[in-house]
Amino acid sequence: MIFSSKLIEDAVRAFAGLPGIGRKSALRMVLHLLKQEPEKVAEFTRAIAQMHQDIRYCSQCHNVSDAEVCSICSNPGRQRSQVCVVENLRDVIAIESTQQYSGLYHVLGGILSPLDGIGPEQLQIDSLVQRVREQGIQELIMALSPTIEGDTTAYYIARQLGDTPVTLTAIARGIAFGGELEYADEMTLARSIAKRLPMDSYMSLSKA
Amino acid sequence: MIFSSKLIEDAVRAFAGLPGIGRKSALRMVLHLLKQEPEKVAEFTRAIAQMHQDIRYCSQCHNVSDAEVCSICSNPGRQRSQVCVVENLRDVIAIESTQQYSGLYHVLGGILSPLDGIGPEQLQIDSLVQRVREQGIQELIMALSPTIEGDTTAYYIARQLGDTPVTLTAIARGIAFGGELEYADEMTLARSIAKRLPMDSYMSLSKA
Repeated sequence: MIFSSKLIEDAVRAFAGLPGIGRKSALRMVLHLLKQEPEKVAEFTRAIAQMHQDIRYCSQCHNVSDAEVCSICSNPGRQRSQVCVVENLRDVIAIESTQQYSGLYHVLGGILSPLDGIGPEQLQIDSLVQRVREQGIQELIMALSPTIEGDTTAYYIARQLGDTPVTLTAIARGIAFGGELEYADEMTLARSIAKRLPMDSYMSLSKA
Repeated sequence: MIFSSKLIEDAVRAFAGLPGIGRKSALRMVLHLLKQEPEKVAEFTRAIAQMHQDIRYCSQCHNVSDAEVCSICSNPGRQRSQVCVVENLRDVIAIESTQQYSGLYHVLGGILSPLDGIGPEQLQIDSLVQRVREQGIQELIMALSPTIEGDTTAYYIARQLGDTPVTLTAIARGIAFGGELEYADEMTLARSIAKRLPMDSYMSLSKA
């Protein structure tokens, strides 16, 4: 693409640096912003600059936060004895959006992956162990990737907590609601048969 | 989607306001920027703010420009007797990117569309007529949409210039290179048969 304006070219390059955005989509965004009122554009750039500048990490769960302690950890309505262990912010948003979970979170910041140089020191595992020991947490729900790395991470955490009375659980894996059996991968299908549930618990899940 | 941080939510909303961007893509962009160094993010917002603030319209061709006269109009290497009439900036970028056109442009800013309240006064038609009369332009290449509105606009411009010696041409329409006949719409196919070219001019086009 050849631009006759360096200003436009720089703006297109800025957008095209974002994940999943090519030069054509970037140009479309730039032309959209070009037509907006100055206040609208100022609002756009301010929202991004402020987000990057003011965002913090919750001292409790290490989720992104607007304050020292995040809005979930500081919510008195949440169940403090349950902690869901996730890899990142995206998982917190996904679970929160179901509106079915009322406990707290712990964001590890990734999963153990020796090949990528990610060991326990790079993750928020020590602070999780400390939370469990000090805050009387009763249940730790592992919501990690169903991969070798995810399983290793869950296993490593379980080992660290072997001497505590905490109950460890993991989110259920299986065929998605509305998913068709013939399109499920073999691993998922095999596991969902092995880990089958009594019919009555299945029915109550469907209704939930 | 439920966010636990208002800063993240505002940034996601800002991105989701762009054309073709949903909340999931917006979140992906926000998380990408969150991981960047402060200078990278400042560069991103600056490119956009500066583009919106400093962009001007070329006093000659009404294309977007970094200066009083755009880089195309002020380029002494361009052929000044040829002017390509287009609707908008996007068309200029498309034609420039072919690197096959060395004349100037005239950006109308749209096409005549009475239903949308766009008459000749809303477009840069008067300034085009003035350019033709004053600058000794020999050829006006119409590169407008192949729609009733586009044809009407071209016809309107032709009427205004009836008393000048300028030659009016229009870009060729037909089956795209690599396009298959069976997938072409009937209108295009019918026109491309009616406006067929001698074989030798076709061969030289293929080689160009």
